[in-house]
Amino acid sequence: MEQERQAVARNRKVVLRGYIERAPREDDMELVDGGAMELRVPEGAGGPAVLVKNLYLSCDPYMRGRMRDFHGSYIPPFKPGSPIEGFGVGKVVDSTHPGFSAGDIVSGMTGWEDYSLITKPEQLRKIQQSDIPLSYHLGLLGMPGFTAYVGFYEICSPKKGEFVFVSAASGAVGQIVGQLAKLHGCYVVGSAGTNQKVELLKEKFGFDAAFNYKEEPDLTAALKRYFPEGIDIYFENVGGPMLDAVLLNMRTHGRIAVCGMVSQHGVTASTGIHNLFSLISKRIEMKGFIQSDYVHLFPQFVDDITKHYRDGKIVYVEDVSVGLESGLAAFVGLFSGKNIGKQVVCVSQD
Amino acid sequence: MEQERQAVARNRKVVLRGYIERAPREDDMELVDGGAMELRVPEGAGGPAVLVKNLYLSCDPYMRGRMRDFHGSYIPPFKPGSPIEGFGVGKVVDSTHPGFSAGDIVSGMTGWEDYSLITKPEQLRKIQQSDIPLSYHLGLLGMPGFTAYVGFYEICSPKKGEFVFVSAASGAVGQIVGQLAKLHGCYVVGSAGTNQKVELLKEKFGFDAAFNYKEEPDLTAALKRYFPEGIDIYFENVGGPMLDAVLLNMRTHGRIAVCGMVSQHGVTASTGIHNLFSLISKRIEMKGFIQSDYVHLFPQFVDDITKHYRDGKIVYVEDVSVGLESGLAAFVGLFSGKNIGKQVVCVSQD
Repeated sequence: MEQERQAVARNRKVVLRGYIERAPREDDMELVDGGAMELRVPEGAGGPAVLVKNLYLSCDPYMRGRMRDFHGSYIPPFKPGSPIEGFGVGKVVDSTHPGFSAGDIVSGMTGWEDYSLITKPEQLRKIQQSDIPLSYHLGLLGMPGFTAYVGFYEICSPKKGEFVFVSAASGAVGQIVGQLAKLHGCYVVGSAGTNQKVELLKEKFGFDAAFNYKEEPDLTAALKRYFPEGIDIYFENVGGPMLDAVLLNMRTHGRIAVCGMVSQHGVTASTGIHNLFSLISKRIEMKGFIQSDYVHLFPQFVDDITKHYRDGKIVYVEDVSVGLESGLAAFVGLFSGKNIGKQVVCVSQD
Repeated sequence: MEQERQAVARNRKVVLRGYIERAPREDDMELVDGGAMELRVPEGAGGPAVLVKNLYLSCDPYMRGRMRDFHGSYIPPFKPGSPIEGFGVGKVVDSTHPGFSAGDIVSGMTGWEDYSLITKPEQLRKIQQSDIPLSYHLGLLGMPGFTAYVGFYEICSPKKGEFVFVSAASGAVGQIVGQLAKLHGCYVVGSAGTNQKVELLKEKFGFDAAFNYKEEPDLTAALKRYFPEGIDIYFENVGGPMLDAVLLNMRTHGRIAVCGMVSQHGVTASTGIHNLFSLISKRIEMKGFIQSDYVHLFPQFVDDITKHYRDGKIVYVEDVSVGLESGLAAFVGLFSGKNIGKQVVCVSQD
């Protein structure tokens, strides 16, 4: 009887209403009641599958790209009327795949809903529970952390003593880049959009300096002040006027790792970049990258970062919003910098 | 007596009137009569020096940067009231440096005047006269040729069969890049600004295809037509809207060698670049370079290109304007694409 009662649950979903070109708004999505759902992998799943109860969902800027009706990217758009997707941590409720059993904790691509049927379970990663908070597998030990790791070590070719600038520095990726750069012996300055974030950068993450870009009328002059000798490495998370100001402050043979351009996600009205001529005069290398091209480094990343975390050399700050229904505002808030640290949604604690 | 008569000559100079920010105009410069000049290295030259009779002067787009009052670049600005400077080929008239004697043919940085006193003669290169036209040492075997060589082999990391796009393709650098790419087994398309230049690309330089960008209302669509599978390598000579169109047509892991941005030399009113987001989604590497960082490769370059030229595998097209007085218009013409091929000024034939 007990089993009978638990075998059905109400499944809520956050669905995309339709494609957009501008920055996302809450009413671009809708929380719908998907009705009662049997908590088992259905017969017609078309192969081994895993039913997961979602615990934490990740809010990431790249997801905005999937809300456009554009099929030329490295990842296809969401389907209007269906739940949006993203990285998540969940608990296996039922499995017809030999690699997973009920009770396993997993991370991977999932739906924004209470329960998700994962039909490609080989893309899930099993998580060993430890002293590391489960939600960190969406940040410090997840895609953002791996992005920081790959971007800094593989793209920036850092050398001890170099001058490093990180924009959106208190975000999911930036906070890790800054800390890795400090561990590498670099001088690190970060920018953020509130004084509270600036304090976080200096007090919590150990940046050498930090500034609130919204309080700087002249970004070129601000960077000149923080980097009188110029910037060797720029970890680019924002695009727009900040990139233009950085280009004028780079040192010869500088490197720009292009990780994101969150200010440019509403592409139609984006501000053009005017100072690319600096690429020539300063022989700058500017390189875009995506963490998934470097999966062979993932195990090494997990080992390194776990060790740094346990040694107290890296900390991580999250902004946790509680309840699937809170996810819409949490996701939209990314694009105006409302989050302080990595934004996650806690759907359920167990 | 013969010697006495030859020992004095009239020296004309092309001097910069004052600094500018926009594209150069003829009246930004002035041809002045420097009066009679003794044809020998003066006593007070401050060390070994060489007096050179200028034969050919090179018109290069980078020179426009030296007409700005901007001291943060890799090369200082010209001095108003003094002759502008550039690469040249000349004949030594007198020398107090043991490495040079009257009659030697040299290339290197010189003034835009009939005779130049070179006070750093160690920067001159002696030219062995051969079947190669002297003026080619300003193009095919000079800085533009070396720029093409370094940019293509060192920055583009080309592979046989890749799709290569060259802008300003009939220019001093572009025509060599295209021919090197063909020799490397690439598929090569070039753009230029007149139908005559387009014909030159196809008929003379062996490009697989070429188009007149001024006749294309939609550059993105034009590139899509010429590269249905996308562009692996873009040799960037122009900047502006062409770069934006290329960014949308690049293939994953493409490379952009940033050699010049001639359309962007009037920086204050330059068109912004809007599509840098493609750097991320397509993992593009964009790298600026300057040939002088690669001087160790110069001897190999001369050997390789001389061999290709003698084997008939590379041709070179020059636009020669005759007389120092013609140089002002020739130089200014670069910025509206008046030249067909490498622009040089013939000051004197011997």
